[in-house]
Amino acid sequence: MIIKMKENATVSQIEHVKNIIKNRNCTLEEIKDNAITLIINDSNEFLEKDYFEKLDGVKEVCYAKKTFYLASREYKKEDTIIKVKNVLFGEGHFVVIAGPCSIESPEQMNDITKEVKKYGASVLRGGAYKPRTSPYSFQGLGENGLRMLISAGIENDMPVISEITSETMIDEYKDVDIIQVGARNMQNFSLLKALSKIDKPILLKRGLSATIEEWLLSAEYILSGGNPNVILCERGIRTFEPYTRNTLDLSSVLVVKQLSHLPVIVDPSHSAGHWQMVEGLSLAAASVGADGLMIEVHNNPSLALSDGNQSLKIDRFKDTMDKIKKITNILGKELS
Amino acid sequence: MIIKMKENATVSQIEHVKNIIKNRNCTLEEIKDNAITLIINDSNEFLEKDYFEKLDGVKEVCYAKKTFYLASREYKKEDTIIKVKNVLFGEGHFVVIAGPCSIESPEQMNDITKEVKKYGASVLRGGAYKPRTSPYSFQGLGENGLRMLISAGIENDMPVISEITSETMIDEYKDVDIIQVGARNMQNFSLLKALSKIDKPILLKRGLSATIEEWLLSAEYILSGGNPNVILCERGIRTFEPYTRNTLDLSSVLVVKQLSHLPVIVDPSHSAGHWQMVEGLSLAAASVGADGLMIEVHNNPSLALSDGNQSLKIDRFKDTMDKIKKITNILGKELS
Amino acid sequence: MIIKMKENATVSQIEHVKNIIKNRNCTLEEIKDNAITLIINDSNEFLEKDYFEKLDGVKEVCYAKKTFYLASREYKKEDTIIKVKNVLFGEGHFVVIAGPCSIESPEQMNDITKEVKKYGASVLRGGAYKPRTSPYSFQGLGENGLRMLISAGIENDMPVISEITSETMIDEYKDVDIIQVGARNMQNFSLLKALSKIDKPILLKRGLSATIEEWLLSAEYILSGGNPNVILCERGIRTFEPYTRNTLDLSSVLVVKQLSHLPVIVDPSHSAGHWQMVEGLSLAAASVGADGLMIEVHNNPSLALSDGNQSLKIDRFKDTMDKIKKITNILGKELS
Amino acid sequence: MIIKMKENATVSQIEHVKNIIKNRNCTLEEIKDNAITLIINDSNEFLEKDYFEKLDGVKEVCYAKKTFYLASREYKKEDTIIKVKNVLFGEGHFVVIAGPCSIESPEQMNDITKEVKKYGASVLRGGAYKPRTSPYSFQGLGENGLRMLISAGIENDMPVISEITSETMIDEYKDVDIIQVGARNMQNFSLLKALSKIDKPILLKRGLSATIEEWLLSAEYILSGGNPNVILCERGIRTFEPYTRNTLDLSSVLVVKQLSHLPVIVDPSHSAGHWQMVEGLSLAAASVGADGLMIEVHNNPSLALSDGNQSLKIDRFKDTMDKIKKITNILGKELS
Repeated sequence: MIIKMKENATVSQIEHVKNIIKNRNCTLEEIKDNAITLIINDSNEFLEKDYFEKLDGVKEVCYAKKTFYLASREYKKEDTIIKVKNVLFGEGHFVVIAGPCSIESPEQMNDITKEVKKYGASVLRGGAYKPRTSPYSFQGLGENGLRMLISAGIENDMPVISEITSETMIDEYKDVDIIQVGARNMQNFSLLKALSKIDKPILLKRGLSATIEEWLLSAEYILSGGNPNVILCERGIRTFEPYTRNTLDLSSVLVVKQLSHLPVIVDPSHSAGHWQMVEGLSLAAASVGADGLMIEVHNNPSLALSDGNQSLKIDRFKDTMDKIKKITNILGKELS
Repeated sequence: MIIKMKENATVSQIEHVKNIIKNRNCTLEEIKDNAITLIINDSNEFLEKDYFEKLDGVKEVCYAKKTFYLASREYKKEDTIIKVKNVLFGEGHFVVIAGPCSIESPEQMNDITKEVKKYGASVLRGGAYKPRTSPYSFQGLGENGLRMLISAGIENDMPVISEITSETMIDEYKDVDIIQVGARNMQNFSLLKALSKIDKPILLKRGLSATIEEWLLSAEYILSGGNPNVILCERGIRTFEPYTRNTLDLSSVLVVKQLSHLPVIVDPSHSAGHWQMVEGLSLAAASVGADGLMIEVHNNPSLALSDGNQSLKIDRFKDTMDKIKKITNILGKELS
Repeated sequence: MIIKMKENATVSQIEHVKNIIKNRNCTLEEIKDNAITLIINDSNEFLEKDYFEKLDGVKEVCYAKKTFYLASREYKKEDTIIKVKNVLFGEGHFVVIAGPCSIESPEQMNDITKEVKKYGASVLRGGAYKPRTSPYSFQGLGENGLRMLISAGIENDMPVISEITSETMIDEYKDVDIIQVGARNMQNFSLLKALSKIDKPILLKRGLSATIEEWLLSAEYILSGGNPNVILCERGIRTFEPYTRNTLDLSSVLVVKQLSHLPVIVDPSHSAGHWQMVEGLSLAAASVGADGLMIEVHNNPSLALSDGNQSLKIDRFKDTMDKIKKITNILGKELS
Repeated sequence: MIIKMKENATVSQIEHVKNIIKNRNCTLEEIKDNAITLIINDSNEFLEKDYFEKLDGVKEVCYAKKTFYLASREYKKEDTIIKVKNVLFGEGHFVVIAGPCSIESPEQMNDITKEVKKYGASVLRGGAYKPRTSPYSFQGLGENGLRMLISAGIENDMPVISEITSETMIDEYKDVDIIQVGARNMQNFSLLKALSKIDKPILLKRGLSATIEEWLLSAEYILSGGNPNVILCERGIRTFEPYTRNTLDLSSVLVVKQLSHLPVIVDPSHSAGHWQMVEGLSLAAASVGADGLMIEVHNNPSLALSDGNQSLKIDRFKDTMDKIKKITNILGKELS
């Protein structure tokens, strides 16, 4: 159940309502906006709407029509814009995140960073802890890797993003500007709850077989815990088609834009699994209305420790950026 | 097995090779290009490569590495361009096919035709025989419908396309310029074989759960029977996602372009199932490199006898066309 | 809309109702049971329930709640039993159909027939027209093959089943006891409509990506055209799992039994694609409540012209039948 | 790369090989069996097979042919049997795990425990930390719930199983006999690595869209870290079919049995999502060769705090167990 308090509700009126709810064995989340909204977990108790509507200070009571609420357009009509240093995600802005799949060495990071920045990327990516299907695959450089990424970011004045794989690591990510939750952890609810308690922007990738509703519900875990800074990322879903690693679902960008106010970007590299397809999918993603892209770039893909086959070389990245700029120009968007 | 004869092979050398194959109980298709290529169905007989290589007039023998051959870039490097009256499908051209899902009346056809032509469509679509999931759904106006479509095409000087659902109907389609094979009939091999014996262009939609390889193999049925005029059409595949009717797989356009020389267009209307998504998906399809679009347009979607929910109104179609023109312009393509 | 006439409705009352419907531009199907039921295609016209309920001779009017009606338990509570010579499909009976994937020679058919009959199969299968993904794969022996199958059936006193691939072939199948519609033709509606006009039993396989509802709607095409003899066959659906050819969906047997009165059998051979899995899946199918099995058996799988890898050798078939008998015995079913 | 040392290899020979590997920047896992086997992560270094074969004490060197090794039949031919108190999982034994979806109260647990034990269940299940798609759904009683489960197990002399959702909770599970990893955490590699460092049996559910190979690779994470006690659990995969919550893939049991020595059980409750289907799927799972079942049972499903719709009532559980016993009897298996 959702209870919206009046804008002029008093603290004691609000406490009174909260106490009743707690006595009914329900937990609640309190959303502070212009006014207070109480989101109540009434899954083990039936609460009568009528009764609550009559309490002092209450403006409106409704049963949650949609399963997600804070992520919905009903809750917030206008697009959310998320600011990461000078970079803006959301309405009217288009952000390109670029960098290698795995962080491999300080030299690699520096070389790639300078190049991707030169051609228009505004956020630097790099994987330090890699979730790999096989325990025998390269698992990433860990904490050392994170430090290399952060240094490259500072030196080149770019915010950085890296994937987290456990709630026990959050402290390690304090100098990382955006924390990425990967597809395989989209429903790692312990991790989502932990990330809801910080206010750093979270990039939430869609799970391999997650419906759009489930994806928005995972965003809701972060939002309802108190962190409003969620950026969504479509990265392809699992289907029967064997030629591509995943099937990029660009329709999902349109659906998200319709249902939610959160920014949504697209990762064309992981979905295709072939660098030859990255440019085409990038242009398509920009055209369909995404707020940005996350592209893997490597200075020497054939030597990459992971996913070299899907990484663009610098030259190709430059060409792709030239075309992306023409598309965003048509759409009236600014490259952030 | 595939046997390429020398360019100067004599008729008697060719006949000799063919007779050996027939005596071995294999059937063969003969492809006339600069030289003769024999494509042999050796599925019930093991033919020794060495033996055939030594025969007079033989240039080269190979086992089919890929399952499709005539549809492949190995067979034909340059893009195939298919001409339908004045309209060109393929390299450098971009074709918009538009019209109602179902043909409903001469007035409806005429109204819609004039409008879609005015805003840039160059081929007129309309369904006369509708393959419907339920026997109780509107099945189309049949032969009368086809006549209305053809009249509207002639009167407005536009080539027309309509879907066929059985090989027994081919004669009825003699004045239809492009025959469409729908997703549900992509592996109706009797129909494909019949269509391979005429030379009218065939628009072959991808099946709901067809891999790209299976789709190209269905094209191969038409090509190997003697009809080289195949246009492919991506229209979304079946996945677990319930929000969209189908998941439009734009990566498939890139894969087809890499593997095959055939033109490929995209149907954004059937994949999404919501008119609100048609514009976004159209722009994405143009950007990813498709050779055209097939868009459902209706002058009064709320009264449409089928699929009204996915049809664009005229005004919206105009807006979409304006944006498509900007995208194709960037890509250096000409609206055919 | 569905209109059930009273049992004592007069011919003129019935004609009156039918005329009103035709004047409203709707088509209708007339079901003759104890009383007349009219199934009306009102997809292009809104018909008022109240109005029709007041007409003379009308017992009951309802909007179709489910999309399928004649195939539903609402229409017919008790299980349908379909009789093919002495073999019974449906409640309390368990039928094993066996034979080679493709018919290859009279000797092969005779050898296999004698063996499968000896171990408990009661219907003989064999493919004459094979729908193959590639035009270069063995397409079956056609009419000659059918004759070999029919002869083997007569000689060994077993009813026979074979797959049809086009409505133009129906005459050829007059001596075939059950006509099979394959997965790829489940939504070949022209074929289904043609088969609805004969009264021979039809085995309708589930399409590769057909929902259970779509499958029952395809059955409804046959039933609503006048042929009540439909046997359903689950044969695996297309999923992301590459190890098995298809994912056998045994839950669908339970769903069909709940929603429909039609018999449903299982094809473990095509779903698995590996003979090693046929026995396990056969026992599972019997346990879950299927009314029978269709198993591919070959006297020499390594030489089979199609699908040898999924065919059981005679010895293995015997072992499997021994175990099937124990399971059906527990379930209180009789091997038909 | 995998290096098998001779049975009589000396400690210094083994250390010598290990040092070379570490100097090459590779990590390794050491498996102690009759002899030492070194499993080397050579993903960022090419190691020459020839060179290592000549080192003293080395018996055999091979590149990993399969991606999983310790989970494979190549590594261990005979079935693994896992002992949990008096209960045996694996060859010749059949284990039924039963209990409520969520733990709700001590009374509920005690009532259900007595009943399921009486009718043949040998392990007690109950969820304390529930991974729920929505943050507003009941999240489980947590630590209190675990204590209720453990008490019910002790009082009724049954081992207990419960799902873990984070590696930070492992200490809380010290009195739980089997730790369950749910479908959504199958690729939570941080959790898997933590569980590989204890020796408690782990029940590893298949992910919603995990291939069988990925599932076995997740098992390999646990095995290669040092915990050999992995029980697999098939629980249905995500497909396009909307009628069932998930599509139970019973073929996977056969595939696992062929590729791996690990025991595999089936969860019919979560896959179907309807209690009406639980019995049929349970019998099918037993017939196909599973080593056990995990069934949700509730004394009052309509009041259950989660998944009541898929829970069996006690009476129905009794009936199902009676039939399961007949099936396992035919298969020559003992109810553990």
